[in-house]
Amino acid sequence: MTRLVMKFGGTSVANVQRIRNVARHVKREVDAGADVAVVVSAMAGKTDELAAWCKEAAPLYDQREYDAVVAAGEQVTAGLLAIALQQLGVPARSWLGWQAPILTSDAHGAARITSIEGAKIIEGFALRREVAVVAGFQGLHEPTGRITTLGRGGSDTSAVALAAAINADRCDIYTDVDGVYTTDPRVVHKARRMERIAFEEMLEMASLGAKVLQVRSVEAALVHKVPTYVRSSFDDPERPNSGTLICNEEDIMETKVVTGVAFSRDEAQITLRRVADKPGVAAAVFLPLAEAGVNVDMIVQVAGEDAMTDMTFTVSAAEFERARTILEKAKDSIGYASLTGANDVAKVSAIGIGMRSHAGVAAEGFKALAEKGINIRAITTSEIKFSVLIDAAYTELAVHTLHALYGLDKG
Amino acid sequence: MTRLVMKFGGTSVANVQRIRNVARHVKREVDAGADVAVVVSAMAGKTDELAAWCKEAAPLYDQREYDAVVAAGEQVTAGLLAIALQQLGVPARSWLGWQAPILTSDAHGAARITSIEGAKIIEGFALRREVAVVAGFQGLHEPTGRITTLGRGGSDTSAVALAAAINADRCDIYTDVDGVYTTDPRVVHKARRMERIAFEEMLEMASLGAKVLQVRSVEAALVHKVPTYVRSSFDDPERPNSGTLICNEEDIMETKVVTGVAFSRDEAQITLRRVADKPGVAAAVFLPLAEAGVNVDMIVQVAGEDAMTDMTFTVSAAEFERARTILEKAKDSIGYASLTGANDVAKVSAIGIGMRSHAGVAAEGFKALAEKGINIRAITTSEIKFSVLIDAAYTELAVHTLHALYGLDKG
Repeated sequence: MTRLVMKFGGTSVANVQRIRNVARHVKREVDAGADVAVVVSAMAGKTDELAAWCKEAAPLYDQREYDAVVAAGEQVTAGLLAIALQQLGVPARSWLGWQAPILTSDAHGAARITSIEGAKIIEGFALRREVAVVAGFQGLHEPTGRITTLGRGGSDTSAVALAAAINADRCDIYTDVDGVYTTDPRVVHKARRMERIAFEEMLEMASLGAKVLQVRSVEAALVHKVPTYVRSSFDDPERPNSGTLICNEEDIMETKVVTGVAFSRDEAQITLRRVADKPGVAAAVFLPLAEAGVNVDMIVQVAGEDAMTDMTFTVSAAEFERARTILEKAKDSIGYASLTGANDVAKVSAIGIGMRSHAGVAAEGFKALAEKGINIRAITTSEIKFSVLIDAAYTELAVHTLHALYGLDKG
Repeated sequence: MTRLVMKFGGTSVANVQRIRNVARHVKREVDAGADVAVVVSAMAGKTDELAAWCKEAAPLYDQREYDAVVAAGEQVTAGLLAIALQQLGVPARSWLGWQAPILTSDAHGAARITSIEGAKIIEGFALRREVAVVAGFQGLHEPTGRITTLGRGGSDTSAVALAAAINADRCDIYTDVDGVYTTDPRVVHKARRMERIAFEEMLEMASLGAKVLQVRSVEAALVHKVPTYVRSSFDDPERPNSGTLICNEEDIMETKVVTGVAFSRDEAQITLRRVADKPGVAAAVFLPLAEAGVNVDMIVQVAGEDAMTDMTFTVSAAEFERARTILEKAKDSIGYASLTGANDVAKVSAIGIGMRSHAGVAAEGFKALAEKGINIRAITTSEIKFSVLIDAAYTELAVHTLHALYGLDKG
């Protein structure tokens, strides 16, 4: 018997009509003989509405109460999908986070799943062939008995973690796109859907700007080795496409050197001029940012002649002003001549496991960008990707250039 | 230390602005030194919206899933009110039905509260002076671990039962009216707000059409002897009116013979002509109705000459067609000549504990109605009330007549 987790996001359950369509997708798998657990998000827009009410009630709201409020969104969808499934003759029941239970840490608003009790769900499969409809995004902090949420996009993580907990054969993440593309098809017309992508590549793609899956869900899939499909809930439920499989790299036959090109416009650059090039200065810069919860991404340091250095790094665009204020306050303790910043920058990345065994991949990329007159402000690399920070105006040109350079246009 | 339950209905929490106003009412009592538990309904319209979605998903939906869906309404309000209270500097936390827990039967959609565990709420009072914001209308069926709901208007019942469970000094039910009136002020301009009304009188008023409180909540207040105020959430939170106290009759100094006049247009009359006047015939009529869940209210039987009788009774207007169909199917087993029905009828009732010790109160009423040319179709009486069934067109006239007759116009 195949055991399967299916996950449907907010646009896939945006109204009752779409929920009934989701029920047809689930019925197809049940009819094919699978035991199915479904993880659902809140109806599109509901989480935003509930969050806005919390903020209206108090700008600095209690995160524990926020969790109780927004968790109502998935609760509604789970009950409605169970009803819609029963209407199709498919036995089903809803499971809220506290009912399964899905146990989490007490980091309200961004909790981590610590364990999932799958026994009752599996019993439902065995005794009643009953589909389990599980409210995503939410859990229970057992010592306090309070509802927690996993943070935005957490339903993907719920799905993958549930798949691991009930030992599912695979996890199908249904979205409003039909798979993972070599880059954003809205930018590059020739972008192609991949049949397969390795966990590690998907993790880089998600981290570097591809919005198809939440980073934490890919981490969970990687850790638990859950084969995960990204597919479309807008397909005909009776004749769906298979989407993109995220899997072990051993299961991918033919690999290209570069698999995909990702980009993010949500970047801001900060440069500190003439910082003393001595031990401890990096800590003086980055500790106050870390303490304020500002995530620093790319860091580039260019040593000057006179034991002074220029230090450039990036933060998310949303944290730009906050980071600037913190660093201006810390000017004396750090000791720098001037601070310049820019938030009209973008990060473009090329990702591929093949880069491990091929030297010079990044260098080719830098050369191609230079030939197009694109100025590179900063570079970071890892074993399977490289990223460049450029002026935002050149984003599309850079993505097109790299996508063509590495043969992704051709299929 | 005064211990208090405050309950706010859907219109009182219709949006965040109104929820913040509710928080000011609660703060007033906390500032006055009370330990407060607040029971809240869903925001006005939310329960209807959620119920409509269930029905759209499946006309004959699973009542257990319905309960999970609609319980989300009170969950949202409870969290938002806790946030709004904290914003005013009042420590507060939300309690969902399963968290307190409020334990109920498994009659999903119309569950009865079996017990409420108040220890954690009382601990919050004692250790943190923390207001408990309790989601009304919902509970937990412990053996199955599923969410239940108490049925429409159940939040009033939640409030009174909670007041009994935590041994509160009183329960304040905040509504969109400022108390219990001698009759509906929209019908009789001279209707007056009562200072006090006995539990038994309020129970009759609610049963006979006064919509200010749900019948079951009054029953709970009567059984547990919880002094209960009906008051307005639209009053200035800093200078509220005291509303109407529902209390023991011993606590009411000056009583009138008749305390209030209630009416209901939600009535339908059915008459069976020429039924055999023999043992077992009433069972033949009323058993099939009872089995179909049709509630029969007033019953009048007029014996004829030839061992045949006419049998008249009322059902709610909503159940009129169903009752008629059932009785037409059972025509042979009952044995009657013809069935006539009318749903343009109304029930008008006069209620007062003083009727116990005063003879002839009802007879005066019948005479006054007759003098106005109002035809009485049926009569029922009990120790503290009488009701007449009349043509609906005469409802206002009958209410005016009785209200004046028993001196309720004068104050």
